Order: sequence, then C-alpha cells, then structure tokens
Amino acid sequence: ATPVFAQGSPADPLPSWNEGAAKKSIVDFVKRVTTSGSPDFVAPADRIATFDNDGTLWSEQPIYFQFAFVLDRVKATAPQHPEWLQKPQFKAAIDGDMKGVMAAGQKGLLEMMAATHSGMSTDEFNAIVKDWVATARHPRFKRPYTELVYQPMLELLDYLRANGFKTFIVSGGGVEFMRAFAERAYGIPPEQVIGSSGATQFKAGADGKPILLKTPKVEFIDDGPGKPAGINRFIGRRPIFAFGNSDGDLQMLQWTAAGAGARFAGLVHHTDAEREWSYDRTSHIGKLDKAWDEAKLRNWTVVDMKTDWKTVYPPQK
Amino acid sequence: ATPVFAQGSPADPLPSWNEGAAKKSIVDFVKRVTTSGSPDFVAPADRIATFDNDGTLWSEQPIYFQFAFVLDRVKATAPQHPEWLQKPQFKAAIDGDMKGVMAAGQKGLLEMMAATHSGMSTDEFNAIVKDWVATARHPRFKRPYTELVYQPMLELLDYLRANGFKTFIVSGGGVEFMRAFAERAYGIPPEQVIGSSGATQFKAGADGKPILLKTPKVEFIDDGPGKPAGINRFIGRRPIFAFGNSDGDLQMLQWTAAGAGARFAGLVHHTDAEREWSYDRTSHIGKLDKAWDEAKLRNWTVVDMKTDWKTVYPPQK
Ligand SMILES: [Ca+2]
Ligand SMILES: [Ca+2]
Repeated sequence: ATPVFAQGSPADPLPSWNEGAAKKSIVDFVKRVTTSGSPDFVAPADRIATFDNDGTLWSEQPIYFQFAFVLDRVKATAPQHPEWLQKPQFKAAIDGDMKGVMAAGQKGLLEMMAATHSGMSTDEFNAIVKDWVATARHPRFKRPYTELVYQPMLELLDYLRANGFKTFIVSGGGVEFMRAFAERAYGIPPEQVIGSSGATQFKAGADGKPILLKTPKVEFIDDGPGKPAGINRFIGRRPIFAFGNSDGDLQMLQWTAAGAGARFAGLVHHTDAEREWSYDRTSHIGKLDKAWDEAKLRNWTVVDMKTDWKTVYPPQK
Repeated sequence: ATPVFAQGSPADPLPSWNEGAAKKSIVDFVKRVTTSGSPDFVAPADRIATFDNDGTLWSEQPIYFQFAFVLDRVKATAPQHPEWLQKPQFKAAIDGDMKGVMAAGQKGLLEMMAATHSGMSTDEFNAIVKDWVATARHPRFKRPYTELVYQPMLELLDYLRANGFKTFIVSGGGVEFMRAFAERAYGIPPEQVIGSSGATQFKAGADGKPILLKTPKVEFIDDGPGKPAGINRFIGRRPIFAFGNSDGDLQMLQWTAAGAGARFAGLVHHTDAEREWSYDRTSHIGKLDKAWDEAKLRNWTVVDMKTDWKTVYPPQK
C-alpha cells in the first residue's frame, strides 16, 4: 500500500481524491459507521461494500474490456471454426470490422460471447483469460487492460478494507472472466466476485478426473434488478456501501440505500474526455441517465471524474 | 471457544473426537498444508473448506429439519389458505399425518416447500425462520433444532478457522433458511453459506422501498453435481477440504479430491442408533452408498459416529 500513500500525506488514505464533497462524503460515512459509540456504528461483519466493475473500477470504452477479449478470442480461434465465416458478426470480428460487429446487435454479440466462453473447462478458461490480460493492450492507451483500473477506486477499496469493510464486485461482466484478474487488480478474492454466469456441467475430463465444462446456456445476468437479487443470493447481507457508474447499477444503489441505518450510494460520472472519456445520458456503453436523476433526488454521492480525481490510472509500469 | 477446549487438554483442539484414524487424518492434513516449508503447504487464501449441512453439521432425521419447518409453516398458515384442504399432502400436514405427507412423493413435498417459501420478502422469510428456530422443538430430543448440531464438527470448524481456513456450507438445503441460523450455530457468515434457492423478484414493497420477493420458481439445486457447480460459481476456488455424509456429496468430494496437491475428503457415517441414528445404504434420507464405496476406493476419511465421536451434541442448555 506504500505507493498509494506516497502520493499524499501519511494520514490521507485517499490521496488521489481532490478535497471536495465526494471525498468528504466517503470519509464522513466511514467515520460514522466505524466509530464505537456512534449512533450509526455498524458491526464489522455487516460492513459490506459492493462495487460495479466496468466504468466503476476500470474503464469500459470504447467497448467493454470483456468484449475486447471476445473479439480477440474470435480471431485467435477462427482457424478452428470455419463455420464462423458464414456468420456476419463473426466474420466482421475476424476482419477487424468494428462497425460490422456492432451491426449484429445485442443478440449477435451475445452469440459471440457464448461461443468464446463455452466448450472448455473452467480451469482452461481461467488460463485463457490470464494469458489475455497479460498480453492484450488497449487500443488507445497501449497498456494492459488491468492497468486501466482507477487509482482513486483502488485507494477507496484499500481504505474501506482497512476500516473493516468486506469488499465485493457485483458486475454484469462474466464472473469467471473477472475472477481471473480481480484479486491481483483490486485485492478482491474470487469468493467476493459476483457476476453473470453461464451454466457449467460436471463431467469426467480426458484424464478421468472431473471437470466443470462451460456451456453456452446463460444462467444468470447480474445487471439491473439482477444486482440486488445476486447480492441476496451470493452475499445474503444487504450492503451498507455501494458504488456504480450507470443505470445498470440503479437497483443495487436503491437496494443499498433502502436498508436501515447509515447508507452510502455512489456513482462515478465520466466527465473527463482528456484523461479518460466523457459520457452519460446518451452513451450506449455505461449509460448514466435514470440513476443520475435518482442520485440527485436522494442526495447520493456523484463523483465527477474530472474535478474529483487527481489522477485516473495508476502510474505506467 | 473456551467451552470447546474445556472438554480436553488445552493442546487438543478436537476434544470430542476419540483418538483414531479419522481424527489423525484431519490433524495430519491440517499440519501438512499449514506448515511453512512443507511440500504440501497451501497459502491461507486457498484454504477453502466446504461442508454439507444436513447429516454433516446437524442431524437430519426423522425428516430433514427444513422439512419440519415446512410442515410447521403449513399448519401455522393454513387458516390463510383454505384451498390447501383440497391438496392431499397439505391436508395430511395440517392433520399431522406424516404417512399421508410422505405419500405425496417428491413432487408433492416440493410443492409444499414452494408454497411456504414464497410470497414474502427475503427479510420477512428470515424473520420467520429465526422465530421458528427459537421456538420449535425436535420430536425426539425436545430441543431446539439448532442445538442438534454436532459438537465434534463445531470443533472441527473452529480448528480449521484457527489454522487459516475459510469455512463454507455447501448444502442442498435452502440458502435463506440456513443463513437464518448458520452464523450463530456454526460461526459461518451468510456470504459463506451456499445452498439451493428460489428466484427472487426486485420490486417496490408496501412502503415504496424495494424488496426482494421470494417466488415459487426454483433457481438452483445445490446437490449432487450441483455442488461442484455451486462451489465454482459462488466461491471460484476449488476446496482443499470437504466433508459430507451422503451420496449427494459425492461430486463435491470428487471435485475436491481431484485438485492438485494435498486434499482431504471426509464422510460422516451415521452408525449410532442410541445417541443419534444409524443409517446408510438403504436410507431415504441421507443415503450413503455410492459415496461410501468411493471413499473406500480412494482412501477418503470415513468418520464412524459411534466410535469416533466422544459426544454427538453440545451439552443441553
Ligand atoms: Ca458499469
Ligand atoms: Ca447431507
């Protein structure tokens, strides 16, 4: 954690956060719920904090990073799938034609997701993702995708854990995709990563030992109303602190805010077209519209990336 | 933990376990994986231990305890459901006719499960279960069901946690049912309880605040091959230590045993008709047949309740 604190005074656990309403609301909340004798004190076991991933902990533009993985996987495995050339969005992906890919719409993209996320064991998939995060580079920043995590949010995760919180990811992204890097990138272990999933099939592998084979069947979508349902199912405690960045997080924030006692609901508003991207109400990726309106109505914390964050990404290695 | 150790020497963390092969296999395994420099050393974060519940951590006879809850709930809420009198197994339950209840078979029992576990919010259900565990009594022992937990297994859970293991329940029982008592009974927090679940619906409650409404739709059955699938989905790490008591645990034990490095797979064999019950190959509840055969073949640890356990239940309060 030394590099984190090196940027600010030793007493400041959030050195990448500019002084302002957002930082203050976080620090005040943590103080209220962790001070013995405070009327808002929360026992450590109940200090559950949930975080969306895409656009909240790492970037998500120009396409969701998991989708960049899908496109790379389509290209990498195309030789084994000559039948893909008959499918327009697969052919477009192989040809590097992004417009053609997007023209396939949601259904076409999900078909490519299923094709690249099934037919292998969970262990094999984990190795594939680990290799990809180690080798792939972002088209704009030319850095590994796992370096495009938000430094201020890394500090926040550390700060919360230092104050007895248990931090979880609750994301629409694939759970097995995220688990391949979440512990290293965010300090969040696999059992605290909740995401969307496909069904797995328990069967004998080639060596007779059991495997879990990833199948194309979608099992759970951890987005929108799926987030509180997933939180209930996987955690069984309502969070007291939750952070997202888009309308897909609205229900998670509502669920968190509706609990008894002190509650924190936060949104990252992408306002920085220079250091990152600027998008909200009309963006196809990470649309922030209804959640922004509700945040104003309920006095939730809205982080303005441009003014609240001293730095966006960790220093390049 | 003092009461646990009070029964034996301060150096013995498993005082309710008689000296023998079963106890030795547990202690040897823990020593091997926790000793720095040992070729079998396992980093703390990877020390995942999973436990079945029914028949492994608490008793399950003459009927699964959750099913006793179902029957009690049918009786308690019958006045609100006159239509139940037209359904034979509901009527039998209301009349206290166990033979009539069982005659309904699996499908009939599941219908009663769905009826008593849906139509309320998750918070309401939690309160209902907490009230039931506080007031219901076992027909044979006349004790709260949460007192019919296995003292030796409580010691084992404590011992593992003291050695850096993270303990999980992985059970075919309802996840929300178990979470209502698991932390108090076993020291296992909600987020480490994995079980079967029905779907929930995120919606506005009577006061406008969001609730998660429990629906009759079965979402996941955490038994048999569902156990390794659930472990993968909810934990994302393969256990190095797993304990069950029946054929429903076979796949969880196979999955655990198939991992690289030192592994522990254990079964509780119910052999004590005096202090508890004696059942295995032909029992409808907690049938131990195939798993017992595989345990012998693979040299898994099989606990003989009668000879290995000095005491079965904690002292009566
Ligand atoms: Ca997001
Ligand atoms: Ca069992």
